[in-house]
Amino acid sequence: MPPISFARGAPAPELIPAAELAECAHAAAIKEGAAVFSYGPAGGYGPLREWVAARHHVDSGRVVLTVGGLLGFVLYVAELLEHRPGRVLVEGPSYDRPLKILAREGAEIVPLEMDAEGLDPDRLEHELESSSDAPSFLYTIPTFQNPSGRTLSPERRRRLVEIVKEHGLPVLEDDPYRLVRYEGEAPPTLHELEGGELVTHTSSFSKTVAPGLRTGYFVLPASDASAFEERANATYISPPFFAQATIAEFIERGRFEPNLERVREGLRARRDAMLGALETGFQNGSSWSHPEGGYFLWLDLGGGDADVLAKRAEEEGVTFVCGADFFPPDSALGASALRLAFSYEPPERIAEGVGILAKLLGE
Amino acid sequence: MPPISFARGAPAPELIPAAELAECAHAAAIKEGAAVFSYGPAGGYGPLREWVAARHHVDSGRVVLTVGGLLGFVLYVAELLEHRPGRVLVEGPSYDRPLKILAREGAEIVPLEMDAEGLDPDRLEHELESSSDAPSFLYTIPTFQNPSGRTLSPERRRRLVEIVKEHGLPVLEDDPYRLVRYEGEAPPTLHELEGGELVTHTSSFSKTVAPGLRTGYFVLPASDASAFEERANATYISPPFFAQATIAEFIERGRFEPNLERVREGLRARRDAMLGALETGFQNGSSWSHPEGGYFLWLDLGGGDADVLAKRAEEEGVTFVCGADFFPPDSALGASALRLAFSYEPPERIAEGVGILAKLLGE
Repeated sequence: MPPISFARGAPAPELIPAAELAECAHAAAIKEGAAVFSYGPAGGYGPLREWVAARHHVDSGRVVLTVGGLLGFVLYVAELLEHRPGRVLVEGPSYDRPLKILAREGAEIVPLEMDAEGLDPDRLEHELESSSDAPSFLYTIPTFQNPSGRTLSPERRRRLVEIVKEHGLPVLEDDPYRLVRYEGEAPPTLHELEGGELVTHTSSFSKTVAPGLRTGYFVLPASDASAFEERANATYISPPFFAQATIAEFIERGRFEPNLERVREGLRARRDAMLGALETGFQNGSSWSHPEGGYFLWLDLGGGDADVLAKRAEEEGVTFVCGADFFPPDSALGASALRLAFSYEPPERIAEGVGILAKLLGE
Repeated sequence: MPPISFARGAPAPELIPAAELAECAHAAAIKEGAAVFSYGPAGGYGPLREWVAARHHVDSGRVVLTVGGLLGFVLYVAELLEHRPGRVLVEGPSYDRPLKILAREGAEIVPLEMDAEGLDPDRLEHELESSSDAPSFLYTIPTFQNPSGRTLSPERRRRLVEIVKEHGLPVLEDDPYRLVRYEGEAPPTLHELEGGELVTHTSSFSKTVAPGLRTGYFVLPASDASAFEERANATYISPPFFAQATIAEFIERGRFEPNLERVREGLRARRDAMLGALETGFQNGSSWSHPEGGYFLWLDLGGGDADVLAKRAEEEGVTFVCGADFFPPDSALGASALRLAFSYEPPERIAEGVGILAKLLGE
């Protein structure tokens, strides 16, 4: 039996519409012929670019479809930080992969404290006013954040946008989980609130269709779009059009929304299983986030050592990522917390795995 | 009518087996299900990795399937040059995109002279012995080189490998055109001759199947493979498995060799059209390479200015890339030469386009 993985930020296989995608791929290839198997614009497959553009009320020239969201992050950082890594503001905790890319590029990473409502705007303002050296940009995942599952409240979004405008601070809003909301009401994006002059909005089809199609997208400020696309061209010539055309066909057949509904239901059942098991098993000073969507929740052990738990849990066949991985390496933050992904395992295994963690902590 | 493009290093649409790939994509998706639409090993789809490994007589752990060859080059450079850009030896002329990546990374690019038999090993040896500062690596495209169409002779390959071993110089052998040979005998690869300890061999399925599937591969020294794969993981998590599984299915159905034969015939007809038109129309001191395969030939105007020709040609509906683009920006080399790609246009348009160039030069 493979371990019960709360480590993998990946969808369960049954949440991926493989058979439908097989049909769509075939249809797209027959329809488009050699064009989807050749080189083309670095910004991606036209019809899908236009669909994204329409949803975000921008011209399609401002949309670049990337080979997954992470490589887009690499391009954004390369474009923005070239010759001046400087300071980058991030949420503390934040998604580990971008933190590693920033560290590799020589950026000084400044984590900003969060609470249950997400990033604290006062903390941001304080940071901006306490240094004469303007940061390169703010990297934020405002909705169902990876790793914490937290969502920035509507009031804070408005306040954050005010601060950003006042300081002319570029923002990268990484928002791949927004559409996998299974309860509550969606707040506006930072991109909508700000108007898209400072805020670059990025998302992907990884959570809404399938991650293996490696199709992310960036909605860029008008002034940055062509440089970003040029950088994509200089890095990988063009993205895999075939995968993008497959998604476009999936959308054209009206499968996007019904599939998303199915994905939401599957994730809701998993989150419920995890929250239920936590409430049953954990009575020892731990606390956790209560996400209304997405893949993750954040478990704070209230002083316990996540590293020690991780080692013992692995022996018992349960894996997760420790909280410290979501802070800059030298920060010593997050030692008592951990990320639990509930996206991959079925509900029964989630309950079983959380039970094992509870037992280990209770011993 | 679109311009006659000798600029595009892309296959003609009719050389891409789109309908067969549509079938293979469908079959691969049905066979593999959600697995090919999810995340997975950064090194790529197992069966295709193994196929490449078997052809190069290495363990599959030494093969990494990349998102196209160029992004693999970015990873190779990032891995090798990190914190020490240093000097990089290249052929003069060489493929423009890698040159731009090297320049962006701050490398000092040293072009080594070529003649009809390719890179001159004596020139390489002289370069290695005249400086105490060892270069980071040699980047070479030994077969049907982009842009020159030249092929390094078997004798020079042996000599080059001797020199490389003597100096412990890492080599990146970029060999995507090797299999699209339509006459003559293939010399051994540098990788075979050297044994794969210093030489990294890279190629792709762009010229043998389809470029839009964005599937390159790197056959790495045993000591570098896991760091390279780790860098791929840190950059794009995993490549598009679906595209790779489509290629694997294409191979499993026995379509690789017959398709390659068809591609070779199509390219041979195009090269013949170009050589024929050059022989008919050009009698003014120009000279050109006579490739036995690949996509390109190199036209030396014997003192004429390629830039001037390019502008006039564009007005007449013919495009190509000027020779200077294939040298480091500050070198002032290649001003009298140009690259003609014959891979894209049908033979009649090739003859017509070369006729237009000849007329412009004769005026």
